[in-house]
Amino acid sequence: MELWFTEHQTEGFGITARIRRALHSETTPYQRLDVLETEAFGTMLVLDGMVMTTERDEFVYHEMIVHPALVTHPAPRRVLVVGGGDGGAVREVLKHPAVKEVVLVEVDRAVVEASRRYLPSIAGALDDPRVRITIGDGFEHIARAEAAYDVILVDSTEPVGPAVRLFEAGFYAGIKKALRPEGLFVAQTDNPWFKPALVQKTFAAIAGTFPLARLYVANIPTYPSGLWTFTLGSLRHDPLAVPPERIPDLDTRYYTPAIHRAAFALPRFVERLLADGFAAGGGTALASGAPAGGEGGR
Amino acid sequence: MELWFTEHQTEGFGITARIRRALHSETTPYQRLDVLETEAFGTMLVLDGMVMTTERDEFVYHEMIVHPALVTHPAPRRVLVVGGGDGGAVREVLKHPAVKEVVLVEVDRAVVEASRRYLPSIAGALDDPRVRITIGDGFEHIARAEAAYDVILVDSTEPVGPAVRLFEAGFYAGIKKALRPEGLFVAQTDNPWFKPALVQKTFAAIAGTFPLARLYVANIPTYPSGLWTFTLGSLRHDPLAVPPERIPDLDTRYYTPAIHRAAFALPRFVERLLADGFAAGGGTALASGAPAGGEGGR
Repeated sequence: MELWFTEHQTEGFGITARIRRALHSETTPYQRLDVLETEAFGTMLVLDGMVMTTERDEFVYHEMIVHPALVTHPAPRRVLVVGGGDGGAVREVLKHPAVKEVVLVEVDRAVVEASRRYLPSIAGALDDPRVRITIGDGFEHIARAEAAYDVILVDSTEPVGPAVRLFEAGFYAGIKKALRPEGLFVAQTDNPWFKPALVQKTFAAIAGTFPLARLYVANIPTYPSGLWTFTLGSLRHDPLAVPPERIPDLDTRYYTPAIHRAAFALPRFVERLLADGFAAGGGTALASGAPAGGEGGR
Repeated sequence: MELWFTEHQTEGFGITARIRRALHSETTPYQRLDVLETEAFGTMLVLDGMVMTTERDEFVYHEMIVHPALVTHPAPRRVLVVGGGDGGAVREVLKHPAVKEVVLVEVDRAVVEASRRYLPSIAGALDDPRVRITIGDGFEHIARAEAAYDVILVDSTEPVGPAVRLFEAGFYAGIKKALRPEGLFVAQTDNPWFKPALVQKTFAAIAGTFPLARLYVANIPTYPSGLWTFTLGSLRHDPLAVPPERIPDLDTRYYTPAIHRAAFALPRFVERLLADGFAAGGGTALASGAPAGGEGGR
């Protein structure tokens, strides 16, 4: 018998992976959770039918949601991860010696438990003494926090189910308030091939809230279209202003000092998407927004 | 009824696309050729079951196989495209006003005919008076040419069927001989996620033949892993030495002056792959090979 898992990433397109075994399946209070052993990408965590992470390519997403921000902040002592119950973002945050505490706020305890059990190479960092895990609502946690974090990372699912509120403008105002004066944040913001309106709207909302907004990209084979975006909102520091000699030689498999800059060089169709969204929003506060971001890799 | 086309990009992984109509199918003397109308990517050309190009994402591949080389050569007058019967690379070459003649050598006449009929937005440039189409063997054409071309672009299929010889070391020696003294060439060289040995071997062969070899990447959603590599071999000019002000503002949807540099910033696992292949080959001629290429985007 051949067992194949197919994720329909849009109505008419998807990826399909041959499965050695279905290791785990449950319906949590928030979502359906599956763990599959795939031939091509190792153990795979699937939420509501969408690939969240795989053993083989997880390093791209987790390095890229973390290092551009952590390298940009001059002294990232206290870091918040919203979502990210698999522990991969936490693992990367802990590679920065300045970090004293990482708070993980994950709404679904089952994600943490399944990751600890089936994805130890990703979730192992959750046992580090610098990590504090809170099972609860990220939106509420942010709403209550004031000047509490140097860096906030929004490692959410796509905006369906429990993550819907994590893509709304009010959430970004809350993040701004929760950051210390030199703070910055990064959210995963989906892909420009299948979700151009979402990328555009999210960027416009972040650019309307923060003095500096920049979008960057990474290649993630198991995510829709393979071209994933992250949006960074910053109160003061610019990732493109970090001197190359200040970028540490981290133990990574994707991120490098060259990638730190190059990831901000956007395909022209993405530049245009952001510029159009900016024009439609009528904003003027975005001094270093879409067009500048697109020139970043020069 | 629902009709889905699935390409198994590796034994255990693939993409799947819903089809509105199968427009055309034939078995040519060289390969099976299908044209499908997909929901997600428009009209799609499929050879031996592998996606060659789609209306919606073809611009990435065609811009990126052409512009880094054409911008790097100071006066690209005569250009050879090997393969590329769909006409997309030729279309991009013709955006450079210095170009006087483009020679297209495609082994399979059926590819040109099907592209003219079903993909006019890609193949339309084939009617330009600067284009000369030769139906024949690219390997033989290269073997006979001496100091004949400023730029050579190897727009082949993966190394199966008629394209096998286009990935062998002897082919690159032929290309070197076929280039004029300031010449350079680019080949599409597959992806590092599923074909690391191929990427490594091809880079080592090109780096062993040319004074300068550089690998660069682009995101192509319908190609395996989405992270596609191109390898550039050059007799004199370095794409990373082109002054930004000399990069023209081309009519593109992916390539930009920032991308011209950023595409050479490689993920660390790709840098390592090339460095290991270089070490294994024992070569010393590669003064600006793998490690330097990886630093290109700084």
